[in-house]
Amino acid sequence: MFFFRLVFFALATAAAVAEDHAVAIAIHGGAGTLERVAMDPDKESQYRRFLEELVSDGHDQLTEGHPGLDVVVNIIQKMEASPLFNAGRGAVLTWEGNHELDASIMHGGTLDAGAVAGVTTVRSPIALARSVMESSPHVMLSREGAEEFALEQGYEVIDPSYFDTDTSRKALEDFRNDSQANALADTAHKFGTVGVVVLDAQGHLSAGTSTGGMTGKRWGRIGDSPVIGAGTYADDRSCAVSATGHGEFFIRYAVAHDICARVRYAGASLAEAANAVVQGELVQAGALGGVIAMNPAGEIVFSFNTPNMIRAGIDTKGNKQVALFGDE
Amino acid sequence: MFFFRLVFFALATAAAVAEDHAVAIAIHGGAGTLERVAMDPDKESQYRRFLEELVSDGHDQLTEGHPGLDVVVNIIQKMEASPLFNAGRGAVLTWEGNHELDASIMHGGTLDAGAVAGVTTVRSPIALARSVMESSPHVMLSREGAEEFALEQGYEVIDPSYFDTDTSRKALEDFRNDSQANALADTAHKFGTVGVVVLDAQGHLSAGTSTGGMTGKRWGRIGDSPVIGAGTYADDRSCAVSATGHGEFFIRYAVAHDICARVRYAGASLAEAANAVVQGELVQAGALGGVIAMNPAGEIVFSFNTPNMIRAGIDTKGNKQVALFGDE
Repeated sequence: MFFFRLVFFALATAAAVAEDHAVAIAIHGGAGTLERVAMDPDKESQYRRFLEELVSDGHDQLTEGHPGLDVVVNIIQKMEASPLFNAGRGAVLTWEGNHELDASIMHGGTLDAGAVAGVTTVRSPIALARSVMESSPHVMLSREGAEEFALEQGYEVIDPSYFDTDTSRKALEDFRNDSQANALADTAHKFGTVGVVVLDAQGHLSAGTSTGGMTGKRWGRIGDSPVIGAGTYADDRSCAVSATGHGEFFIRYAVAHDICARVRYAGASLAEAANAVVQGELVQAGALGGVIAMNPAGEIVFSFNTPNMIRAGIDTKGNKQVALFGDE
Repeated sequence: MFFFRLVFFALATAAAVAEDHAVAIAIHGGAGTLERVAMDPDKESQYRRFLEELVSDGHDQLTEGHPGLDVVVNIIQKMEASPLFNAGRGAVLTWEGNHELDASIMHGGTLDAGAVAGVTTVRSPIALARSVMESSPHVMLSREGAEEFALEQGYEVIDPSYFDTDTSRKALEDFRNDSQANALADTAHKFGTVGVVVLDAQGHLSAGTSTGGMTGKRWGRIGDSPVIGAGTYADDRSCAVSATGHGEFFIRYAVAHDICARVRYAGASLAEAANAVVQGELVQAGALGGVIAMNPAGEIVFSFNTPNMIRAGIDTKGNKQVALFGDE
């Protein structure tokens, strides 16, 4: 009986709060060089249908009053479970042929954050990142240590073959056969990271990012996705950002934090801030990639310097956008 | 003959360039709660003598025209080799009784950066961080992978007992016996990280940080020291920062990058920017620690919210400061 009253109370509270704040959500599934002509129509409609589902689902959850962190984790988990993206199942392979997964999450109201780097046996790295935030004294855990923590938290140990796809095997083969491999010049190897930013009914921003990193990465490489300030940042005083692209540059330019800092300190609009970094600093540096960004008013900005970014959003007025290419 | 001409040319160039720009250096050896009364006079003079030596040595190297990155590595290596600091020899121990060392380095002119997290067999993590920057396509390497990279780069494999000290063993024992251990409340366990920021004769800022992390850390924890934007940042357009303190907060507040962003975007002076973060944001969050910061004019700021920070500096006018406590 207590349980039912608790559920009723929770639902009632959620519904009441949901009326207080307009909600918004934006999603990315990576930015890359794939041109419109190169994508077969079946694949294209598969992406569009899935993005449409995800963004509507996330928006519904937010409207029902679910906290932003729940929605970020829920939606990213669906992308991690899909082989369409370079995160969870479908993640790219390291030089040695393994999957080393990175993720991070941050709450804009508390600035609480959690991240994991190089996990190999955890089905949902984004869920583990949230556990690091909520159930450890640390922000960032790595590799076997992060897996030991996952075990203590009751996470199932997954056989790494779960993450395998023909696409990622083929990408590693191509990478190894590529005489330019060491230059890491082919952007096809780099992208497909997923991320979500939301404004929830409680008026808070949250952001999360999950990835398999870069095909052929070596030596326990950590990219930008699990680095708070680089691949992910959220601060109710400025904005929430999730990034995708050539991670090394995104770390050096502290991309996610820099966009928020320009909003907070330079008085830039969200679009000005995101474009100054993605179309300005990163282009000058020769770095490819993009971001999704959202401010406390729920405004959504997609900024990318690649031919496409897989993306979707629903703004505070309920306007829905699903897009893959740069010219739409 | 060619070699001698090359050396002559290098020396001549260094000397010529050295005259072009005034140089400056600042060093920290960690911020903590140790009070003046608690430190025995021998230890105190040991710290002061060593800091005096280090800062003079670094300043001489800069005056001779050595690039900032060389000086950052040289001076931090001397601190890593000393058991007086929580970096290299003297590093604190993890929960399991191991040394897991973190370091990062960044150049303000190119924004090139390198970092290593959780290395256990490399004598100088700061040197390895620089090798990551210069000899790998990545910015951040971790654990066994970083050690494999070190081996490929010709680094000697060190027996981890090299890093051991009675002090770190005792600190871990205290930590394990402390009923409040999980709260990680005792700041004595947290500090001693070392860092250097410089303005070199070529007019560029550089920053580096090296640490053993936090006594009793677990699960492959990564703190702020190897995170570009958190523990270390350098950008000729704003400033160079090396941080020390409760790393989890320094990651969440992107401390090093935030100070530079306030200088660049908010038009804050270096002192205003550093104090707004260290005395403002971090104090409000309940986070202890401090930073050394330098701007392109060579101005030095020490900002810390702990009773002491072990620190030294020589500014562009040659004024030298060596200090341990907050009231000096």
